[in-house]
Formats: sequence, structure tokens, C-alpha cells
Amino acid sequence: MSAEAAARILDMLREREAPLSGAAMSKSLGITRSAIWKHIRSLRREGYHIEARPASGYRLVAVPANPTQWEIQAGLGTEHFGTTIYALPQVDSTNKVAFRLALNGAQEGAVVVAESQTKGKGRVGRRWESPTGSNIYLSIILRPKITPTKIPLITLMAAVASAEAIEEVAGLLPAIKWPNDLLIEGKKLGGILTEADMEMDRINFVVVGIGINCNMTRSSFPPSIKDTAASLQEALGREISRIALIQAILRHLEQWYTRLVQGRGEEIRGRWEELSQIRGKEVEIAFMGEIVKGKAQEIDADGALLVQEAGGEVKRIVAGDVHIRG
Amino acid sequence: MSAEAAARILDMLREREAPLSGAAMSKSLGITRSAIWKHIRSLRREGYHIEARPASGYRLVAVPANPTQWEIQAGLGTEHFGTTIYALPQVDSTNKVAFRLALNGAQEGAVVVAESQTKGKGRVGRRWESPTGSNIYLSIILRPKITPTKIPLITLMAAVASAEAIEEVAGLLPAIKWPNDLLIEGKKLGGILTEADMEMDRINFVVVGIGINCNMTRSSFPPSIKDTAASLQEALGREISRIALIQAILRHLEQWYTRLVQGRGEEIRGRWEELSQIRGKEVEIAFMGEIVKGKAQEIDADGALLVQEAGGEVKRIVAGDVHIRG
Repeated sequence: MSAEAAARILDMLREREAPLSGAAMSKSLGITRSAIWKHIRSLRREGYHIEARPASGYRLVAVPANPTQWEIQAGLGTEHFGTTIYALPQVDSTNKVAFRLALNGAQEGAVVVAESQTKGKGRVGRRWESPTGSNIYLSIILRPKITPTKIPLITLMAAVASAEAIEEVAGLLPAIKWPNDLLIEGKKLGGILTEADMEMDRINFVVVGIGINCNMTRSSFPPSIKDTAASLQEALGREISRIALIQAILRHLEQWYTRLVQGRGEEIRGRWEELSQIRGKEVEIAFMGEIVKGKAQEIDADGALLVQEAGGEVKRIVAGDVHIRG
Repeated sequence: MSAEAAARILDMLREREAPLSGAAMSKSLGITRSAIWKHIRSLRREGYHIEARPASGYRLVAVPANPTQWEIQAGLGTEHFGTTIYALPQVDSTNKVAFRLALNGAQEGAVVVAESQTKGKGRVGRRWESPTGSNIYLSIILRPKITPTKIPLITLMAAVASAEAIEEVAGLLPAIKWPNDLLIEGKKLGGILTEADMEMDRINFVVVGIGINCNMTRSSFPPSIKDTAASLQEALGREISRIALIQAILRHLEQWYTRLVQGRGEEIRGRWEELSQIRGKEVEIAFMGEIVKGKAQEIDADGALLVQEAGGEVKRIVAGDVHIRG
């Protein structure tokens, strides 16, 4: 099925409340009436409630609440992020699916979202709990022409974009915990997992995974994260639109990514420092089997965190488990 | 079909010249005679010439000359490299196939070989010419628990192992050109392409691709590499056994890899310097959009090349296009 034709049928149905005849759509799209009918059936299978009356035509009665590609793309407002969207019921992990797609040549800006993950991934192989139907599990493929040393900036950029998108849609601004967590009142609301396919001196592609706990209610929190996780629904006392949040994430991501590839990493670092709370704090960071203790300084030009140890030595840290002391 | 049963049938047939009855094999393997017959048919499809005589049984008359998994595994002599082998007629690139397998959970030491590649890859997205049926295109999956900064050592290790394997099988020792080429008389005999799936501070897996021009004759060289490429067949004036060379590569690779993960990178560096001819040479290296000129020094502990510029400054280079001056 041509995804584009289905999208245009949806657009036409969205625009009017009165029924629209199959003949009118057929003429407008230049496809047969039976093709129109096939697309209508496909859309219905995706959860669109489309009434069909023999005399008057088709009418859109209700759209699905879950993020289908059509719902995300309707009024998305990006240049090219989300031009291709794979919205899937269940995957092993959206990062893995995106990796496979990227290996097969998928374009920059292609997005994978899933209703649940059987092997949702956190940093360094940890599990990211991914129950069905209430949260956001999203991965996007990037093909930046930057040096591999700048990859940490991509994680920072994604954290900034996600925080801003959450503020826009839910009206509350999460804190960023270095390097890849989004927190509400000290509990984990979301996380970023940046993975790259790399040669020594070249990035083939990057997959940025974003997981955000949206409408998960306290009683549906998996036991393993009950004490450490937050959700937007719990913080707000109401559901939020995952579709609106995904759209906002893609818009903010595209804006920050444009700055990144234009060499304006400075702006990402600036915004990141506003949203993060690490600078000047005493930290302990587990990094590559070593514990680094000291005072967190700024983020350097490549996105690494500088930590000044008691002896005065400054260590450069690209990722790790950070514990803020005192 | 159980690959293991087929392998054991082959082993039994290899061991004797007289025909072996289906009943004897059935008893020895604990599977039915009709299962034996199915395996025989599968092996025949892979190119094994197995005679069947109603009265006396099966006899192995000829084995395929191309590297099937059975031929590579027969007498391989490794611990676990090559325990799983995917021998395929044609792929886009063995590195890509190995990447997909690794994403799906393939074990360390799993190997992909192909008779030809439609999108054979060299470093930084260049093409690696991969005509059918005469060369080696091999990728292996590694899951080393080492820090990402040590990945350049993997390329060096693979170059050393490949050079030693070629010496063992063909009796000539190619030179290693930093970082990833194998040369005979200044012409390109083979190359290594190391790609990793990485997070900031963690290697998920590494795929090492090895391409070696084996039995390609001058008249069958693709035009684009006619002047720059070498093959073993051309250098020796005779064909070499690709199966024997693949086996030798896997054995040498496993030995060097064991040293790598045991923290004995020093030995890799030492052997690499013997086989390489770069130390002390005046070089020009294109690296991340910059040209570094100077005298090549040693390889550092992470496998990067140190180059001393005219002003005395020493630059650390992880990969690039090197031109040896004068």
C-alpha cells in the first residue's frame, strides 16, 4: 500500500466533517475507487474509525490514541525528521530495529516507535522497563558528518530536546542528570541511549533512543522500578498525549541537531548546563572500571564532563554512573 | 536440518574410503535412516559428491572447493572462533551481515564468509571490489570486554593474524600498511575493516572484516583496481586453497585475540611493528579532514600511531590515509 496515498486520504477526511465520496477522493488522488477502499480498510486496521455510507461516502469518526505514523506526521512541522516513521506494536528494542534499518540504508531522520519493547535497553546493557501502551519508546537514525569524538554532544542534545519537548507538552521541565537521564523530583522519568556504528575515524550512523514514562500509572509500574521511576501521568495527575509529545520531541531534536551539524555545539552546551544541575557539585563517577571523585566542572567542546579531583587533576569523562554527593 | 548431524556424517565419510552403510551411520548417530538420507541430500546440494550404492552404502567422492561451513570446520583447530559459520553465496557485505547477526545476539567468534559481495566495503565507505568465487570475504563477530579506546588494537591484531596466516598457507609474508592494508610489492593484497557497535563507554560488539585477493587472475581484476591490486595467485603463479587460508586466519586471529583480551596488547604492538614498515618514515596522513605531516613513531598502548611533526609536537592518530614520502 502506498503510505502516501493513505496519508492524503486521511488528510482529506480530517479536513471536513461531512462525508466525502469515494468518487471525489478517487478523482482528487488519481487512483481507482477500489484503491481508495483498500486504503480505508488499512487505516481501519490501524485503529481509524471511518464510517462508510453508500449514498454519501466516508467520514472520519475517531482517530487512534496510539502513535501511528499518520497521527505523528499530521501537523508534525519538521523539515525531514519523521518523514519515515515505523510505528510498531512490539519490538525487541527500538534502537535495535533502527540499527537494522540503518544498516539497510534507512535515511537520516527515520524514526522507530513501539508500543512495547521486550528487550528495552538502558546504558551499558541494562534493562529499560518497557510495558505496553502507555509510554514512549522512540529511536531516530542520524548520519552526522562530525568527528566520532563529538558523539557525546548527541546525547546532550537529545536530553535537551526531550526536556524542552516535555516542558512544551506537559508544562513541567525535567532536570537532566548527566549523562543521559531525565528526572522529576529525583526520580527517573526518561533516558537517552546513544549508540553508533563506527569505524575508527568515521561515524557510519548514530541511533538515538529516547524512552519516556508517559501514562504509566503507579499500579502499573514494573516492580523493579517502582521506587526509582516517575511518569508524567503521575506527576501531572492526568494523561498526556503521546502523539503530541513525540511530535514535540522530533521538532526540538531537529532544531538542536541542525545546530550540532552547523558546528554550534556551544549552544547545546549552554542550554544543557541550564537544564542540568551538575556543575560545581561534588560527584563520584564510575567510569570504565574506575571511580573518579571530584568537583564537576563544565562540559568540554566534545560533550565530555570535566571533573577536578582533590589533587587538582582534571579528568575528562565521556559517560558513566554519576552519584552526586552530599 | 541439524548442522551438527550433517557435520558428523561428513566426518564419518571422510574417515574411510570404503562405503559406509546408512544403517551403520543411523546407529552411530542415533537418528533414523531417512534422516541420514536427508542430510546426504543437503550435503550434495552444498557441492559434496557422495556416491550411494544400494548394497554397500555411502562414499565421499569429492568435496567442494569453495569454503562451505563443513570444509572450514573440518580440522579447524580453534577453541571457539568459527564454531558458527555462515557461508553464503552472495551478500551485500559480510560486515553488514555480521552486524545484523550480532544485533540478533550472535555469539563471539561467529563467522560470515561469502563468495561475492555486491557492496563490499573498504574504509570510510569506500568500495572493496568483490568479484565472485576466487577471493576471501570474511567477517567475524567479537565481543571484547575492553575499553573503546583500545579498538584500534583490533585492527592491528587482525592485520597481524592475516599476514601470518598468508605466510603459513602461501609462503609469502605481506607487509602491513598502517592502519589496515596488506601489501605485496606495494600493491594491495587485502584489507581489514573494523566496525563497532558502541555506546560512549562500552563496546556492544565489534565486527572485523577481512578481504584477501586469493585466486583472482590478472584478467579477472575489476578495471578500477587493475593497477593497484595484487592477488596471491598472481604472486605465486598457482592457486591457493581458500579453505586452508580461512582456517589459518581463524586460528591466528583467535591466538592474537586471546592476547588482546588478556591485556597483552604489548605483544600485538611488537609483532605489528615487525611486519609494518612505517616506523621512522616521513609520512603524510589525511585524518579527520586535516593533513598531518611528520615522522612516524611507535604505536601507542591503544593502537594509535604517533607522528612527530616538524615542530616537535607529537600527534596521535587512530586511522587515516597514509602516504609514505620519498
